[in-house]
Amino acid sequence: MTVSFKNGKTSRRNFLTGAAAAGAGTVAATVAKAAGDPLITEKQVWAQATGDGVDATPYGLPIEFESDVVRRNVEWLTADTISSINFTPIHALDGTITPQGCAFERHHSGAIEMKKEDYRLMINGLVDTPLVFTYEDLERFPRENHVYFCECAANTGMEWAGAQLNGAQFTHGMIHNMEYTGVPLRTLLNEAGIQTAGKWVYVEGADASSNGRSIPLEKALDDVLVAFKANGEALRKEHGYPVRLVVPGWEGNMWVKWLRRIEITDQAIESREETSKYTDTLEDGTSRKWTWVMDAKSVVTSPSPQSPIKHGKGPLVITGLAWSGRGAITRVDVSIDGGKNWQEARLAAPGTKGAMSRFYLDINWDGQEMLLQSRAHDDTGYVQPTKTQLRDVRGLNSIYHNNCIQTWWVRPNGEAENVEIS
Amino acid sequence: MTVSFKNGKTSRRNFLTGAAAAGAGTVAATVAKAAGDPLITEKQVWAQATGDGVDATPYGLPIEFESDVVRRNVEWLTADTISSINFTPIHALDGTITPQGCAFERHHSGAIEMKKEDYRLMINGLVDTPLVFTYEDLERFPRENHVYFCECAANTGMEWAGAQLNGAQFTHGMIHNMEYTGVPLRTLLNEAGIQTAGKWVYVEGADASSNGRSIPLEKALDDVLVAFKANGEALRKEHGYPVRLVVPGWEGNMWVKWLRRIEITDQAIESREETSKYTDTLEDGTSRKWTWVMDAKSVVTSPSPQSPIKHGKGPLVITGLAWSGRGAITRVDVSIDGGKNWQEARLAAPGTKGAMSRFYLDINWDGQEMLLQSRAHDDTGYVQPTKTQLRDVRGLNSIYHNNCIQTWWVRPNGEAENVEIS
Repeated sequence: MTVSFKNGKTSRRNFLTGAAAAGAGTVAATVAKAAGDPLITEKQVWAQATGDGVDATPYGLPIEFESDVVRRNVEWLTADTISSINFTPIHALDGTITPQGCAFERHHSGAIEMKKEDYRLMINGLVDTPLVFTYEDLERFPRENHVYFCECAANTGMEWAGAQLNGAQFTHGMIHNMEYTGVPLRTLLNEAGIQTAGKWVYVEGADASSNGRSIPLEKALDDVLVAFKANGEALRKEHGYPVRLVVPGWEGNMWVKWLRRIEITDQAIESREETSKYTDTLEDGTSRKWTWVMDAKSVVTSPSPQSPIKHGKGPLVITGLAWSGRGAITRVDVSIDGGKNWQEARLAAPGTKGAMSRFYLDINWDGQEMLLQSRAHDDTGYVQPTKTQLRDVRGLNSIYHNNCIQTWWVRPNGEAENVEIS
Repeated sequence: MTVSFKNGKTSRRNFLTGAAAAGAGTVAATVAKAAGDPLITEKQVWAQATGDGVDATPYGLPIEFESDVVRRNVEWLTADTISSINFTPIHALDGTITPQGCAFERHHSGAIEMKKEDYRLMINGLVDTPLVFTYEDLERFPRENHVYFCECAANTGMEWAGAQLNGAQFTHGMIHNMEYTGVPLRTLLNEAGIQTAGKWVYVEGADASSNGRSIPLEKALDDVLVAFKANGEALRKEHGYPVRLVVPGWEGNMWVKWLRRIEITDQAIESREETSKYTDTLEDGTSRKWTWVMDAKSVVTSPSPQSPIKHGKGPLVITGLAWSGRGAITRVDVSIDGGKNWQEARLAAPGTKGAMSRFYLDINWDGQEMLLQSRAHDDTGYVQPTKTQLRDVRGLNSIYHNNCIQTWWVRPNGEAENVEIS
């Protein structure tokens, strides 16, 4: 097979078959013994003195040793830091919940600061009674809680032309997965009373960009939430405090932050954000009008370029994330030979609609190079495509909605690199 | 019924029946209209200027307006701030996940600071091969993810003698609920090889207190995790970074932080922490030897003393948390008349074993005073007891394991107070 590296070089390689490296081994043989290890035989400073009391941090922060587990920007990617994006450090996380503190940000005119007392949400347009809600009003409606992923349409967008960014944080980190609490949008729309002519809702934020998007009424009445909490607490400023829209399974751009207004209309507004942006340009130069749903996708988060193997051969946990905007993840396959052979990974929990799944494959690594891939399946029967399959349909002109299989080339020294194979 | 207030006063009161105030109403009638509201009619500062860019906070913090949603200490409760506890602000949270930043802390000799490179875990005692694991070793074993609650045995302990602390944060906030990632303890024990005589494990932490506890081998081999992540990221220092024990459903004191050593023994060690502390003194002065499992319990988090009703009568969301160390929560009842009438609350999601459930009851409040209570049921058939029922069995000498029904007296002005009824 041909392997293309992010520096543009290619080579032909023969990779081991999956079977040779498969099957979890025992770790005990590689485990250190206590004899002579001063961390076991000597009394340590922390066992001789008291630590910090409970008044040290009323709101706790990550320990200083984890200071590399932060959101990161790619400076050349966007024109400025106001209309820009950063990336969740998914290479360093485990489980499925993304802490708000390191969940990616995407702003069109910066993260604005608004008090709850100053918050207003207007519903107008084709309704019986235009309404304005305060934050306190929203708190009086029946609430729901759901764990949902939010993925930017541009996630993995830099990889269309070839292997480019060297790390899962940068190739796949425009995503988060949080437990949202909010009021179903349909409840608020029903309070206003939707007129028969109403077929769409146009939603906009209170920031300068307004970031207006049109959503078909059917979706708006289905599972969209007007959310005010994530992972139990108030939204962070950068995620739309005090109120954002949650549009399960659909591209992140529609999850309007600092939600200000919802207008019922008889047709789509065709705003800037749904015409010149967030549409997919095809091979022949025409553009696909709307791509709202984020198709099934997955990525190995470790090992990966930012999370190399440090312990040499033997037992190795391969882990990653999978998600689908169309339904629940039902299965993830992992290949260590660039897709020649596949093994079914273990899902940490049964998939749920619109939420991320964590997968694991426990292998006994023989220390040889690997071409690591993962492939997601969802409950609609959809299977995540290869890059080649995706290019065959979509061409090379796209930025958005790249859900192709990702390849990491893991070297015998445990370091990994973003590559493409064909 | 007789109502006792936290200031020691009592009174006899007739409370409305639940039926009169039940049934969710429409909020629209109470919603403000746009006319004349400058927050709707005038252009706001945030729509005219750009906000913060994505480089502002690599690790995001709560917005300044949420600075009251923090852990709090009760100064008189413990002798010093090193061996002390603080409380999760559950009155201000929603959903089920507790963010690490505001999850309660309990230290016996302070929160210590240890690098991953300095971490060692020894397994010794009645094993075939004593082992010492580094942090990196632990990362090579197959991992699991589970959402579990961790409740301090002393949670609600101050309420045995009467209504005392005025807020759900203080009466019920020694609890958190997080998604833990770790290696099953049984995997590590099996690596060492448990000898036939081994019946218990004794676990201790690396801090000065060591906080040693004995756990029956059956539990250790069941669902105990050696955990290194919570809600996706590394444990906070105050929660045991880099490794803590997770003992699902069992009292928090056994969830040893900065886990250092696990010794397989033939009997319980009967350490300080399981004899003079964390045992329940009964009416006759004798002590119940061990109470490991946290029984089913619930509390209304809003409205509550720290979360009063501000909007007057009409639609009101009553919400709270329920949990059981024995299994999944199957049902929560809510009473607004001190337990005379009960209505079944809505669970936000089906209960899962060892994890918290969020419940809601949407009512149309008539503006009259309420005696708010909640009552949890779990899948073993257990029903949360009243304070009177609990005292009948346990007497008044206890500190720990108080899972009685909590009462909030909500006044017509929306303010709430911790009371007892009999």
